[in-house]
Amino acid sequence: MPSNFTVAVVGATGAVGREFLKIFDSHKFPVGNLKLLASERSAGKQLTFRDEPICIEVAGPDSFDDVDIAFFSAGAARSRALIPFALKAGALCIDNSSAFRMESEVPLVVPEINWSAVKPEDRLFPVANCTAIILCMVVAPLKNLGKIERLIVSTYQSASGGGAAMMEELETQTRAVLEGKPAEPKVLPQPYAFNLFSHNTPINEFGYNEEEWKVIHESRKILEMPDLKVNVTCVRVPVMRAHSISATIEFAGEAPGLEVVRNALAHANGVKVMDDRAANRFPTPLDASGKEEVFVGRIRRDLSHPSAISIFIAGDQLLKGAALNAVQIAERLIKDGRLTTE
Amino acid sequence: MPSNFTVAVVGATGAVGREFLKIFDSHKFPVGNLKLLASERSAGKQLTFRDEPICIEVAGPDSFDDVDIAFFSAGAARSRALIPFALKAGALCIDNSSAFRMESEVPLVVPEINWSAVKPEDRLFPVANCTAIILCMVVAPLKNLGKIERLIVSTYQSASGGGAAMMEELETQTRAVLEGKPAEPKVLPQPYAFNLFSHNTPINEFGYNEEEWKVIHESRKILEMPDLKVNVTCVRVPVMRAHSISATIEFAGEAPGLEVVRNALAHANGVKVMDDRAANRFPTPLDASGKEEVFVGRIRRDLSHPSAISIFIAGDQLLKGAALNAVQIAERLIKDGRLTTE
Repeated sequence: MPSNFTVAVVGATGAVGREFLKIFDSHKFPVGNLKLLASERSAGKQLTFRDEPICIEVAGPDSFDDVDIAFFSAGAARSRALIPFALKAGALCIDNSSAFRMESEVPLVVPEINWSAVKPEDRLFPVANCTAIILCMVVAPLKNLGKIERLIVSTYQSASGGGAAMMEELETQTRAVLEGKPAEPKVLPQPYAFNLFSHNTPINEFGYNEEEWKVIHESRKILEMPDLKVNVTCVRVPVMRAHSISATIEFAGEAPGLEVVRNALAHANGVKVMDDRAANRFPTPLDASGKEEVFVGRIRRDLSHPSAISIFIAGDQLLKGAALNAVQIAERLIKDGRLTTE
Repeated sequence: MPSNFTVAVVGATGAVGREFLKIFDSHKFPVGNLKLLASERSAGKQLTFRDEPICIEVAGPDSFDDVDIAFFSAGAARSRALIPFALKAGALCIDNSSAFRMESEVPLVVPEINWSAVKPEDRLFPVANCTAIILCMVVAPLKNLGKIERLIVSTYQSASGGGAAMMEELETQTRAVLEGKPAEPKVLPQPYAFNLFSHNTPINEFGYNEEEWKVIHESRKILEMPDLKVNVTCVRVPVMRAHSISATIEFAGEAPGLEVVRNALAHANGVKVMDDRAANRFPTPLDASGKEEVFVGRIRRDLSHPSAISIFIAGDQLLKGAALNAVQIAERLIKDGRLTTE
């Protein structure tokens, strides 16, 4: 693997941005020169990478001239504004925002699932919604076991999905409540300490919030199942990082046997089965926090349907749900010879 | 209403036990003499009721001689051991444990839903599982709007469902984690602070835990729909009190219109609709905590099914899910003339 790429991270100071640096390190990602970019608010601050301090620069149209690969994690508006310049400057762009995910000519890839969707000319790679990725990681290995017709999903989403500010809000409020003080919402409209609430994104005409809409449509695109029926309820819970999902998967015709399902999941790359009924030990967000695998358990028949199974999933929102999936895309592009140091 | 009943509370020092005393007071329940009973561990302690200290006695076979009405909230084993003596002594028994709920000759009533199940000779009234009650409070008003075929339910259950000890565990662990110390599980097998996990009750041969099994079978009994199909996943979340439920209700044939559903719920006794899409304001466990009503919102079509709706529910586990439902049964028995002071 060549080893001297110039890599840019836009949104370096955010919750996902910081994970990029850790993963570059733990994965021995071939970073030669690292440019850390952020908004003016963070300019001049420093972050440490491989024991060296790196000064954060303001992200702007001219930031990408010598960049081989640029990771974006600074929100959809910033991605929309900057990615055209980065592409023009010749950088491959991997974008954690929702800006370009659903554009028909843009691939939406989870490397373990649908790498074949990548065309030789593709240079922009959005990373899907964290919940959609974590869900699809477990649904995709079941695609060959029968015709999946419908997913019924309720989520238990952590603070990390709202970034560093929301994680801090959960911590600050919880501390206050334990001291007998009121929980004062700042980032969120509602108290978060020891509370949970419907995902805080705008609701559309059908009564679904933006997060739910992303899960429906992005899952269809990742799984390459445009007609997949998806019922989804997204809920924010007072957990620091890692999202959990309660999912029921309905098959047309007969459902695969539980042992077949367990076996398919146990052999799926990036998936870890934790399903010990005797010990009542199933995936929790703490198990998944800091882990690269998506955990799955509670694998059982849905007794209310002739051919459905129910499962419970936990995956690190900041890793497989965001930064890890982005780095994996870059690693795969390098492996495919799409990035060279010339 | 007569006003001088001798009332016993077994399990007076527990999380539900303490709610009984508050509700007796706020409901002006006709308590003449109040006997507080508990295990030997609590004997000799005092609780205050209507500004008077009451000494806690050890609950035993002889505790019920002069008791008109006895509330039990000390676990199934204690109920099984003591209720036969209480009945023999002539007390009407209202039991918050699971001991007798599914016995065919015993009614399982939520007064707003199925009071007609009570026969004149009934003297034992189990209170259903908290999650089943909260769920049924919202499903029952929809029974007349179409043929309900299947419920698909994922829960977000609070610490209070595990009693005072579990609430304390959540608080103690959260405090420790915020101080940078490890979360030390004592009551629960797994860390609870900023974490969630599959309900900590034994798993049966079908892969369902006891809580889920109760929700399936008790809901059928309360709703008087023995063939109702129920898919349920019970999850414990780090919330102090009040359970939340994500539910999808499938109808056979056409589903009722959303306005019809909203209207039926708005007019249902004990139900409060909180469903403001524009303000993104839906039920949370904090809204429901300390409230007698069960809250419902996120009322929308399930876009993955031709005739289903999805909703989100929050209800106080200690109140409508336990102590309040018990007191309401007693109030109704008094109103029906089943309890007199002679």
